[in-house]
Amino acid sequence: MTEKVRKKLAIIAHGGTIDRLYPVFILSSAASAMDMEIHLYFTFWGLQMLVKGALEKAELPATYKHLEGQLKSSLRMMKYPSIYDMLKMAKASGLVKIYACSSTMKMFGIKKEDLIPEVDKIVGAASFLDLASKAEIALFI
Amino acid sequence: MTEKVRKKLAIIAHGGTIDRLYPVFILSSAASAMDMEIHLYFTFWGLQMLVKGALEKAELPATYKHLEGQLKSSLRMMKYPSIYDMLKMAKASGLVKIYACSSTMKMFGIKKEDLIPEVDKIVGAASFLDLASKAEIALFI
Amino acid sequence: MTEKVRKKLAIIAHGGTIDRLYPVFILSSAASAMDMEIHLYFTFWGLQMLVKGALEKAELPATYKHLEGQLKSSLRMMKYPSIYDMLKMAKASGLVKIYACSSTMKMFGIKKEDLIPEVDKIVGAASFLDLASKAEIALFI
Repeated sequence: MTEKVRKKLAIIAHGGTIDRLYPVFILSSAASAMDMEIHLYFTFWGLQMLVKGALEKAELPATYKHLEGQLKSSLRMMKYPSIYDMLKMAKASGLVKIYACSSTMKMFGIKKEDLIPEVDKIVGAASFLDLASKAEIALFI
Repeated sequence: MTEKVRKKLAIIAHGGTIDRLYPVFILSSAASAMDMEIHLYFTFWGLQMLVKGALEKAELPATYKHLEGQLKSSLRMMKYPSIYDMLKMAKASGLVKIYACSSTMKMFGIKKEDLIPEVDKIVGAASFLDLASKAEIALFI
Repeated sequence: MTEKVRKKLAIIAHGGTIDRLYPVFILSSAASAMDMEIHLYFTFWGLQMLVKGALEKAELPATYKHLEGQLKSSLRMMKYPSIYDMLKMAKASGLVKIYACSSTMKMFGIKKEDLIPEVDKIVGAASFLDLASKAEIALFI
């Protein structure tokens, strides 16, 4: 029996703000519905948001800060899933892997036990480049 | 007769500031001169700039806000085309398609009739991933 | 004798802040350790940082400005190489090429002699797209 070969989406999730985290998970959700394999490499501000309790406090960047209240209330009215809920749904598909960038963890003094349990693995940039070079789509968000 | 196969450039145009919108259209213009096929998927802040009258008011992000006056006057002196002019030129090449992200439209309450007429289609992330997976270059800007 | 074919990483280095410049060089360093060929195209804020003396003054973006002192002191304590040192190490690998975007130079009135000597070539977007379309991984950072 041969293993099924899926198309791959590889994302470097660098941004830590609402407007960047949603696209990471909206793309992951669409890709998993298309039966793609998704690899999310969280680094820098993105990684900081994988610390327990951080996603719940995600904000908009300085440029758009004044729109935050309005966006959050509109998401609530639409009963739009929260970022963390989208992450959990992504994981539940079985097609999404979440990696934490080892250099960022050192740079910011973040330990493994600080991270949410949905993280699959702590890896360096080389492991991710290897995955990304085999992916049909690689994005830096 | 077989259809000509062109190389493809797929861009998720996420940013809504001058410094991100220009690269989207400078890359599109260079790619169309190379006879590539270009697919631009406007989402989040990028999509908001496709609302009629918005591109004319594009600004720099908070970090560089203090350079805005200087940049705008330097672009005027160079008679550099405006972002909207570049969008129109891109469309005139016949090689550029402009997509509006359907989830963003719901999130921000934007209706079809609010958008500039150059938008080709309103689609979801899945349609775009399908295009991007066939593209030689896919970027998130 | 045939030339060795290496996998390629192509990056549009658009950001000019610490949090975007480090990823450019961390990815370049990992890719060169994997014997990949790396093409870095500096444009907009990224290009401005190739002006002599600029990299040394790189800052964090407005959203994260309040964390700058803490990040810089943590990098110093870790004896983490500076961005310019990482650029020099990248070049020393012989696998990294640095390009300056010609349109940005005109837009900001930057001259060839203003740039650090590590820049290999001043080119337009078309030359870069040509490289990127042959690369396994293309990113906009």
